[in-house]
Amino acid sequence: MKNVAHLIGLKDLSKEQIIQLLERAEYWAARPTEQADILRGRFVANLFFEASTRTRFSFEVAQKRLGAHVLNFIPETSSTVKGETVYDTIRTLEAMGVEAAVIRTKKEGLLQELAESVDLKLINAGDGTNEHPTQCLLDLLTMKRQFGKLSGLTVAIIGDLRHSRVLGSHLHALPKLGVNLLLAGPATMMPAQIPQGVKIVEMEEAVQTADVVMMLRVQLERHADSLYLSKEEYHKAHGLTLERAKMMKSGAVIMHPAPVNRGVEIHTDLVECETSLIQTQVTNGVAARMAVLETLLKGSEMTWESSLATATY
Amino acid sequence: MKNVAHLIGLKDLSKEQIIQLLERAEYWAARPTEQADILRGRFVANLFFEASTRTRFSFEVAQKRLGAHVLNFIPETSSTVKGETVYDTIRTLEAMGVEAAVIRTKKEGLLQELAESVDLKLINAGDGTNEHPTQCLLDLLTMKRQFGKLSGLTVAIIGDLRHSRVLGSHLHALPKLGVNLLLAGPATMMPAQIPQGVKIVEMEEAVQTADVVMMLRVQLERHADSLYLSKEEYHKAHGLTLERAKMMKSGAVIMHPAPVNRGVEIHTDLVECETSLIQTQVTNGVAARMAVLETLLKGSEMTWESSLATATY
Amino acid sequence: MKNVAHLIGLKDLSKEQIIQLLERAEYWAARPTEQADILRGRFVANLFFEASTRTRFSFEVAQKRLGAHVLNFIPETSSTVKGETVYDTIRTLEAMGVEAAVIRTKKEGLLQELAESVDLKLINAGDGTNEHPTQCLLDLLTMKRQFGKLSGLTVAIIGDLRHSRVLGSHLHALPKLGVNLLLAGPATMMPAQIPQGVKIVEMEEAVQTADVVMMLRVQLERHADSLYLSKEEYHKAHGLTLERAKMMKSGAVIMHPAPVNRGVEIHTDLVECETSLIQTQVTNGVAARMAVLETLLKGSEMTWESSLATATY
Repeated sequence: MKNVAHLIGLKDLSKEQIIQLLERAEYWAARPTEQADILRGRFVANLFFEASTRTRFSFEVAQKRLGAHVLNFIPETSSTVKGETVYDTIRTLEAMGVEAAVIRTKKEGLLQELAESVDLKLINAGDGTNEHPTQCLLDLLTMKRQFGKLSGLTVAIIGDLRHSRVLGSHLHALPKLGVNLLLAGPATMMPAQIPQGVKIVEMEEAVQTADVVMMLRVQLERHADSLYLSKEEYHKAHGLTLERAKMMKSGAVIMHPAPVNRGVEIHTDLVECETSLIQTQVTNGVAARMAVLETLLKGSEMTWESSLATATY
Repeated sequence: MKNVAHLIGLKDLSKEQIIQLLERAEYWAARPTEQADILRGRFVANLFFEASTRTRFSFEVAQKRLGAHVLNFIPETSSTVKGETVYDTIRTLEAMGVEAAVIRTKKEGLLQELAESVDLKLINAGDGTNEHPTQCLLDLLTMKRQFGKLSGLTVAIIGDLRHSRVLGSHLHALPKLGVNLLLAGPATMMPAQIPQGVKIVEMEEAVQTADVVMMLRVQLERHADSLYLSKEEYHKAHGLTLERAKMMKSGAVIMHPAPVNRGVEIHTDLVECETSLIQTQVTNGVAARMAVLETLLKGSEMTWESSLATATY
Repeated sequence: MKNVAHLIGLKDLSKEQIIQLLERAEYWAARPTEQADILRGRFVANLFFEASTRTRFSFEVAQKRLGAHVLNFIPETSSTVKGETVYDTIRTLEAMGVEAAVIRTKKEGLLQELAESVDLKLINAGDGTNEHPTQCLLDLLTMKRQFGKLSGLTVAIIGDLRHSRVLGSHLHALPKLGVNLLLAGPATMMPAQIPQGVKIVEMEEAVQTADVVMMLRVQLERHADSLYLSKEEYHKAHGLTLERAKMMKSGAVIMHPAPVNRGVEIHTDLVECETSLIQTQVTNGVAARMAVLETLLKGSEMTWESSLATATY
């Protein structure tokens, strides 16, 4: 992975690169309490320009388990209030010896632009409605650990598709890995464009056919007007109700990137039910992020030999 | 202490359990600069939904002296702004491998409710007007170190009693430990209920009789209307004035959970006078919290043998 | 340096003390990635009552590279919102075992006042318009590393001089070290008083004569009314334009304490041009702060022998 300078999006990674990250993520997932100090004395910074709990803390846990020093940048108390640009902030961190920056931002394209002019490693923790690559990687890791392989699986992603950066990453990654992707949701929430091979289906078909029913958080406040729907109406029309969950085939699982709107896109009783992997996704998020950090910061030194056993994916 | 799953309140602990925590707190108080790494590689999170300086930093110092990784949750920049519940936040942290959460909240009963449904260890850092158990433990530790034992001491708690979570904990703990408890303060600030054996007395009697004169912070902004008192009038009528401090018996000490309103519940010159243990309380807070964290996270492995020398308490 | 209790300002330090700090800063600057654990198990706190990116993170990097535990105090979520004074906050931190506090504040004189009544080490990270001593030290370190020595250099500080705490420190330090200091800028931004030997010159003369052209950030929002100048007009009249930069003598360098107003006090193309040391200043900031922290906290134990080779400075 010497050639991976940044993790901006899964659009930029080959199938082999994705699998290599997943293999390493499996390695860490198998060692859930190991304190590794392979990044001891090295600095990483987290710059979240949007609110976050799980992504931010997941990165911080991953960084600290790898032994790195962590700088948490809080926009409200920083020189961005004096008008400093993100570019100048990143360059400043770089000059202090910070080697990687995890960035969440509203501005699509910002990371790509930064990537051309900075040397520290950039990791996209969600940029607008574009991509959320580590969320996608942890989803893939969760599926791989659940089903043993990815190729041939059918994944249905359901709900607020148009604004979803999670979907943004999956649209690039799933087809590369031989996963069949179904989309369902309100017509007004469909993505503008979909790649060849991805199918839009009715919700019932999606729920009945999929190995993975992945519900997305609906930003109802953003859509309420155009949808003319209350939370209850949305749940009934487009949510994973108890009834719909019963239609899922044997062995199928529920996923959700969270935070969950209980009772809106998913019935509250399903969040932690037996077929739900939502908590497991959070657990796997740490492993996926450890793999990304390690690969970007230690790539050239990693003695671990990838089997590149693509057949097992 | 294997049976202590959480530290919600001293109401729930037996005399023996309290003493065991105090014994371990004495151990740490005797090693004020020791960097112990017994929680190395383990994660704890601090979730303060109300402002705090000393409690939050005291926990952070305790956590870091024990070698733990610390996650500081800031509500304003987290998914709670997207409406996520505390329960879902705690479950998320748990899934990432966080083993203990220190919580300060306005909502009484929240911790008790959480305790029934989460596996990580909950530590109450103040819940509404209910309890503030680690403040009580550090007070007890301070008294024990000052007087050699607790049983038989007379402690007067004075001031804004009705809304005090510190008093909430002391009402449960002091009687269990054989401490005589006197209460004094404005009639409108008396607690709704007091346990048998606890006496309400005039301020002068309290000050003259007590081994420990514990002044509580008055939230004057909350009471000003009903009291029709200025800060100066409150000080004169209900505060520890220089005159009243002179009435204290020989060997008696002043305590206060802080932050102090200088010139309101206590004369500014008394805050750091010779008989004041207010700074010592802060110092002991670190030791008390180290004992709590260690007991909850290492309880089953602790090789340290408690003498359970209740006679010395 | 046993006699240096705090770092409030360079006004208080002798030439020998400044050189000793710079020598140690050179030591750390030569070891840019070394993880030293000489402050392991010891606590320092950062209290920034004003927004900051580079100073705050620079201190945090310095602290962590020295192995210290770092407490980041955020005024908005602390007991200062309950009206607690900075004095009481510092005393509280001291009681917990915190040994040094890095403070940025609007209030000039606050640190001097605190210094008389607290035992922990105070480090000024900028107090109002008074001093910013570690910025000055990193500037001196940058000049020393660039030119081999300080004595005999000519430094021009240009721009918003009246409100500059960076200038405040340089006015004390540069003359002590035998550096010629020139000032230039709008008449309304001149400092009220200047020491003997410091010259006010026209901008063109400053730029043509100086070895170091140090541009200061202009707080245009504060001055716009009195100046009747737009950003463009300020740049043309008082900024380092491309034309003026061409007048600089061979070997001369550009410095700026940052954050930079691109296109106001300095042309955007000059910020990262070949003669700019702005990024280098940030890098050197870590080394300068490591030297300060180490000297204050380990001064009496430091086995490193200063050559006190003032001749080389």
